Amino acid sequence: MVHTTQCCILMGCLCLFYPWSQVCEWREPEELAALLDLELRENGEPQHQLLQRIRDVAKYSVKTNHPRFFNQLFAGVDYHALTGRFLTEALNTSQYTYEVAPVFVLMEDEVLSKLRSLVGWAEGDGIFCPGGTMSNMYAMNVARYRAFPEVKLKGMWSLPRLAVFTSQQSHYSVMKAAAFQGIGTENVFKNLSLQQVEMQGHLSLPLFTYQGAVPFFVHATSGTTVQGAFDPLEPIADICDRQGLWMHVDAAWGGSVLFSKEHKHLMRGVERADSVTWNPHKMMLTGLQCSAILLKDTTHLLKHCHSADAKYLFQQDKFYDTSLDTGDKSIQCGRKVDCLKLWLMWKAVGSKGLEERVDRAFTHTRYLVEEMQRREGFELIGKPLFVNVCFWFIPPSLRGKENSPDYNDRLSKVAPVIKERMMKQGTMMLGYQPQGGRVNFFRMIVISPQLSHQDMTFCLNEIERLGNDL
Amino acid sequence: MVHTTQCCILMGCLCLFYPWSQVCEWREPEELAALLDLELRENGEPQHQLLQRIRDVAKYSVKTNHPRFFNQLFAGVDYHALTGRFLTEALNTSQYTYEVAPVFVLMEDEVLSKLRSLVGWAEGDGIFCPGGTMSNMYAMNVARYRAFPEVKLKGMWSLPRLAVFTSQQSHYSVMKAAAFQGIGTENVFKNLSLQQVEMQGHLSLPLFTYQGAVPFFVHATSGTTVQGAFDPLEPIADICDRQGLWMHVDAAWGGSVLFSKEHKHLMRGVERADSVTWNPHKMMLTGLQCSAILLKDTTHLLKHCHSADAKYLFQQDKFYDTSLDTGDKSIQCGRKVDCLKLWLMWKAVGSKGLEERVDRAFTHTRYLVEEMQRREGFELIGKPLFVNVCFWFIPPSLRGKENSPDYNDRLSKVAPVIKERMMKQGTMMLGYQPQGGRVNFFRMIVISPQLSHQDMTFCLNEIERLGNDL
Repeated sequence: MVHTTQCCILMGCLCLFYPWSQVCEWREPEELAALLDLELRENGEPQHQLLQRIRDVAKYSVKTNHPRFFNQLFAGVDYHALTGRFLTEALNTSQYTYEVAPVFVLMEDEVLSKLRSLVGWAEGDGIFCPGGTMSNMYAMNVARYRAFPEVKLKGMWSLPRLAVFTSQQSHYSVMKAAAFQGIGTENVFKNLSLQQVEMQGHLSLPLFTYQGAVPFFVHATSGTTVQGAFDPLEPIADICDRQGLWMHVDAAWGGSVLFSKEHKHLMRGVERADSVTWNPHKMMLTGLQCSAILLKDTTHLLKHCHSADAKYLFQQDKFYDTSLDTGDKSIQCGRKVDCLKLWLMWKAVGSKGLEERVDRAFTHTRYLVEEMQRREGFELIGKPLFVNVCFWFIPPSLRGKENSPDYNDRLSKVAPVIKERMMKQGTMMLGYQPQGGRVNFFRMIVISPQLSHQDMTFCLNEIERLGNDL
Repeated sequence: MVHTTQCCILMGCLCLFYPWSQVCEWREPEELAALLDLELRENGEPQHQLLQRIRDVAKYSVKTNHPRFFNQLFAGVDYHALTGRFLTEALNTSQYTYEVAPVFVLMEDEVLSKLRSLVGWAEGDGIFCPGGTMSNMYAMNVARYRAFPEVKLKGMWSLPRLAVFTSQQSHYSVMKAAAFQGIGTENVFKNLSLQQVEMQGHLSLPLFTYQGAVPFFVHATSGTTVQGAFDPLEPIADICDRQGLWMHVDAAWGGSVLFSKEHKHLMRGVERADSVTWNPHKMMLTGLQCSAILLKDTTHLLKHCHSADAKYLFQQDKFYDTSLDTGDKSIQCGRKVDCLKLWLMWKAVGSKGLEERVDRAFTHTRYLVEEMQRREGFELIGKPLFVNVCFWFIPPSLRGKENSPDYNDRLSKVAPVIKERMMKQGTMMLGYQPQGGRVNFFRMIVISPQLSHQDMTFCLNEIERLGNDL
């Protein structure tokens, strides 16, 4: 069996290097389901059929490592990180104890410590989580526990109503966290600036009340999802300091600017935060999932907040220092190893290599913006501060018609049609969305190191080709 | 670059097939940290050094696929599943939309549907989660939402105090979930049987109060962590029916008995549950992480409970049926693809092959128990119903001394010493823990298909060798 399955494994690897010309091979769901023959049956299948299934899975999956995949906040591939991922899978262990994950417990500690040092902290705490939403949830939970430790035992009924502050553009995980943790989405205040809160709130340190609720958590963003905006962290930190609020920075997307001497100013003041979410699986290309929650705390808040002291796993009479076991820090029990891919890539290219990657993405973005400005029909939504390029494509029929009453209505239909055409032809992928008062506009994410000027030019030409008749 | 990194990847794969003789190569943390040279530096390293690092990571990691690894609720390796994991990593996408994960959205649906059919449901809902604790948390959250939908907006302050019921032996994730979701661990009642609750509670359907709190969630277990016990589901379902309580079955560990015609009776009544947690990464060997939360619900509770309607990701004017997008069902945003490894393995061996695997584990367990009964010094803690074999090793110096006052104290020190010795010699790994009034006893988990009678005999001989002088 091993022989043939080894073939399978190699086949799996080779999928990656196969010269896919298309970013995707669109099929309608019904057609795709039939092509894949997904049904699971009583009997197994012969090897040649399994190999064909592997080929089909690869063929009809989106090639997110294709240089013309601009659709999400991840893209491209780093082969060292991929090696780390394969090795992680081959070694299949859980990150909870030194006993079953000696290498990875030490490695996670080193990687987290290095990420913290980029934030500006000489010490602190942290853990890898299954995605940025979970990291943000960890932050909100630990913040609540710091303010009201009795919540762990007694639940929310022992607490006053709580309030969370964030911006209109923050990630929807704030709402999900508030709902999941029993705080309620109505207690997330998104429409006001913190300065306003401070003026309106009844100041009674350490916690004041706002609309009858007690604020405890401020969720700032470094790198918003759509536009890549950065909240000004210094003034937010001033207010959090004065009011004793937990300051969390959701840098899931933007955090990687901390690698760059040229661009880290975007997160000036981050060292004053209490916690930071940072997803190396986005701009750093480690591959999903790789998300860290970093804490400034040195009092083991994370452990106190999440511990359940399971004796079957975390025996206190073990023959090694059980403070190395991380299981009581996490809310999960079994926890996937997410540090190796980042560690191996970092070892391979060094902090310098990662810095270059960040700087290159900014350079690419500038090039793309200049190209757009040179062309009629591309209308930028603000000048990008980061690597999100947001723009409308205005087809010839709409140019100069900004004042006609159906302009917005017609413009809103342009991006969806172009998107449908690019996917059905498989030539590239980028996303679109409406936001605030703005009708559907494209968001193009420029991070892949496999990206060339040619790819970006192709993309603009292709938008024109697909949209000029609209 | 691709050439050398391809070498890296192959190296990563080969680690798995290298004939490791030891289960682990124990090093003290300080020594291991020095050996691995974990520090991340400014500059990258040459390829030959990276290859050495990969070898070191593999060398000092625990070989969880070694047949003598009996330490956790996972073990062994299935090469088809591993192929699926490599392919998942190579294709690196997120499970949230049909747009970027067409194959995996359809595949997840098929796998979940097949798992549900084993539970006994012709329809329903579900999703893969990052581990069993998260699956259990999903269940508790959806149950709370069904009983009190206003919780999503208004938080817990709009609700009466809630009560959760579970057994003393249930997994600690119940406590973690109650703490994280703002219910509080004191509102988890573990010390009483549901029948008692029903007798003491003031019955006022659909929800009664118990000690001033409103029960809403019963967390039953199929396959407890330490002893592998199964709660009787039928009587629990009767009470949940009468009282309108959400019945959740945590079958993270035991769920795989549903593949077996011979053993599925252990979960008789599971089809009456509202939700089931099932981790194929345990007994089914898919590799971490692979955990499903299955729901009987057909009213889209999961989506209503967790949706945040993020417009940038889940545009309603997409050109395909957006009901396929799963992102509003999950609490995570980006979500790792966890279905392919299970699907590919299932395709390869069929339901029949998976059934054989389960049955074989039971047969191995019987063999091991008989071997123990034949030997002086092995004292079983109950007859295993499942594949957890719990026992004390009584060294010669303690045999026949059950009545001496320091017996328990001395016995409690036996397992930790044997554990230390086996790990330092790297010959095998199994776990131990105290539980209730019982001092430290071993728990040996017998699931790996790579396991032979010889391995089990070796294990017993080795315990005698390492512990006879104690």
